[in-house]
Amino acid sequence: MSISPNPKRTVAELRELRGFTTDENGAQRVAFTPMWVQTRAWLRNKLETLPVETHVDAAGNLWSTLRGESETCLLIGGHMDSVPNGGWLDGCLNVLAGVEILRRIHAQYQGKPPVTVRLVDWADEEGARFGKSLFGSSACSGNLDMTEASGLVDKQGIKLPDALREVGIDFERVKDSGKELKNAAAYLELHIEQGPVLLDLDRPLGAVLGTFGVERHAITFHGQAAHSGSTPMNRRKDAFLAAAKMSPEIYRIAERSQGGVCTIGSCTTKPGIVTSVVEECRITLDQRHLAGPALARMLQEAKDASDKFAKEGNVKVAWERLWQIAPRPFNDELIALCDEAIRETCGQVHRLPSGPLHDAAEVAAAGVPTVMMFVQSLHGISHNKIEDTKEEHLELCVTAFDKLAEKAMKWICT
Amino acid sequence: MSISPNPKRTVAELRELRGFTTDENGAQRVAFTPMWVQTRAWLRNKLETLPVETHVDAAGNLWSTLRGESETCLLIGGHMDSVPNGGWLDGCLNVLAGVEILRRIHAQYQGKPPVTVRLVDWADEEGARFGKSLFGSSACSGNLDMTEASGLVDKQGIKLPDALREVGIDFERVKDSGKELKNAAAYLELHIEQGPVLLDLDRPLGAVLGTFGVERHAITFHGQAAHSGSTPMNRRKDAFLAAAKMSPEIYRIAERSQGGVCTIGSCTTKPGIVTSVVEECRITLDQRHLAGPALARMLQEAKDASDKFAKEGNVKVAWERLWQIAPRPFNDELIALCDEAIRETCGQVHRLPSGPLHDAAEVAAAGVPTVMMFVQSLHGISHNKIEDTKEEHLELCVTAFDKLAEKAMKWICT
Repeated sequence: MSISPNPKRTVAELRELRGFTTDENGAQRVAFTPMWVQTRAWLRNKLETLPVETHVDAAGNLWSTLRGESETCLLIGGHMDSVPNGGWLDGCLNVLAGVEILRRIHAQYQGKPPVTVRLVDWADEEGARFGKSLFGSSACSGNLDMTEASGLVDKQGIKLPDALREVGIDFERVKDSGKELKNAAAYLELHIEQGPVLLDLDRPLGAVLGTFGVERHAITFHGQAAHSGSTPMNRRKDAFLAAAKMSPEIYRIAERSQGGVCTIGSCTTKPGIVTSVVEECRITLDQRHLAGPALARMLQEAKDASDKFAKEGNVKVAWERLWQIAPRPFNDELIALCDEAIRETCGQVHRLPSGPLHDAAEVAAAGVPTVMMFVQSLHGISHNKIEDTKEEHLELCVTAFDKLAEKAMKWICT
Repeated sequence: MSISPNPKRTVAELRELRGFTTDENGAQRVAFTPMWVQTRAWLRNKLETLPVETHVDAAGNLWSTLRGESETCLLIGGHMDSVPNGGWLDGCLNVLAGVEILRRIHAQYQGKPPVTVRLVDWADEEGARFGKSLFGSSACSGNLDMTEASGLVDKQGIKLPDALREVGIDFERVKDSGKELKNAAAYLELHIEQGPVLLDLDRPLGAVLGTFGVERHAITFHGQAAHSGSTPMNRRKDAFLAAAKMSPEIYRIAERSQGGVCTIGSCTTKPGIVTSVVEECRITLDQRHLAGPALARMLQEAKDASDKFAKEGNVKVAWERLWQIAPRPFNDELIALCDEAIRETCGQVHRLPSGPLHDAAEVAAAGVPTVMMFVQSLHGISHNKIEDTKEEHLELCVTAFDKLAEKAMKWICT
């Protein structure tokens, strides 16, 4: 007998959650705040109807375990935390779909599925308070930089270790959470796309190929301030001119990379007055690609271009790395299963990389075979109160994600 | 008998002035401050050895009149005020060279030159305190916008009318100073170039063709914020891309204009974060040309380019005029006399427009035949404590400017 999940219940639970965690500016489930604690209590209450063992690990991640015939585990993950003024789906759709899947598996296998199934609510995926995303999952994967993390402070000047202590977490022990990945054979994560790709293609669902690697730099061009009236054009050392040339260039670099994206997100000028040539211009460059060598090539091309523009304009250029992360390609076989599950659900499938990072990137980095499923985002937007997905697509994604979970269990058993 | 001026005395007086008005950051003769009042007292002391009538007009300009056989006047002008942390020559070289010329004319004509010769020390040329340059000369020319000026405040919140009252000037009457231009037949002004043109050409002196007209605008491009990772390049509405394309374009526009200059002096981005496409980018554009039609063409070309780049990038663009002034071409016959005076002094001459504005622009606008002479600036720089000119060039400029004054007197008489 095949039992189906109840996607309408998931949508109803998402609305219930929105009801008490959202104000007129959006969702307010920022990690380690009282609202987040309240959200988790609500989640545990939902789980209590199932015969799951639930505990919080050393990094604050909440694990709910449905024991199976084997100790080998299928993991399903998400995050209940949001950015301030966030959307109603980002992160919690994943978790609540996972709850529904636990219910379906429990009902179908009479409480004893072939493998152990575990749902994890990662702590502080967004990094909204301390400016460092993927806290719980990177502690669990072992990638968290403890020195850097120990120095993080929020806007009130509270240190991350002190904020953790408030919610019962000992900062020095957070990496003990790594033992949770023992026996993990696959990790699945559902997420809203947060971009316009599926919307543009008119596809409800997509199989995710992996998360982009990211190279993030500040580029500072240094020229010479000079009077806007008395300085001939050919005598200028115009830092803005060199920086400005980078903008169309990064579009060419992204195009050549076949699948990468590049963004200049900010530009500041000094002295920055109407009557002076710009002496110093600082731009930030964010580059992303699913393939490591392609990402490295994009970076090198941007460096070469900045050198060329600096030389042309008789200015100097300096690069400063702000952050980087390697691409995290997902598991080919799980991607194929995700394709299948989507095709069986709605007939149409599309494979796409994830530009934003997700906890799945950390689990994949820890060596657990991983895949994500995306559901279409309206407006192609997230981290905003207007974030939304059609109700029919929300229902489809729960159904398809459940099929993926079933296929993944069978895959683990073979 | 021909009597010569004593340029070495002018250099000595400039040094004397520097001695008590300059600190480690540069000259501090900001208009309407105690130091400026002290500077003027020192200047009046220098003038007391001459049989000149000295008075302050309704706008605070200091006039010293050497009566001649005719009431028709030759005017020589400059300004004793400086920007904060300014250079030692900007403005006061003009006045002190004028003092030396008065001495020479007095000596040569036994106190009775063929025309009346008047030296004016304009009040607040720099506009450093209230952000509005050419105060005294624009009051005198009648161009001062009284409504705008009445609302100007300094950093301490003091209004211009109140600051003027402190130094004995009634704001409501400042345009009465216009009567000082009665009988004015020519206006001469010497100034450091404040740019690199004469330095690059290795010419000590230049005849100035007029002051540039200026068009000053803020240009705001409005696109859409979007996630740097999840937004495909071809879906972006990147306000920075459109603004950046303006930078190389204004160099092309300036080149086509044959003699104009264009400057993007500042760039600001919103939200201005590394992980978002720029939603709003505001740049300032300063355009200058000696010819009105060419300036209008430069502006139109920049507007056309901004429309084109906005359309290409699917963003919107809005222009806001910050300020404008018409070109002030100088008198052709006086320019020719200036050429002659320079050629007789040092054999080499160059004609050039003035990018920065000067009080001469206001006097020319009032219909008085006007010319300026420039002396080379080292480093091509001004409004800075490193502003400097070779001593031999300072001496040459006094000699050449005196020759110009003599030629101008004769020109007035013919």
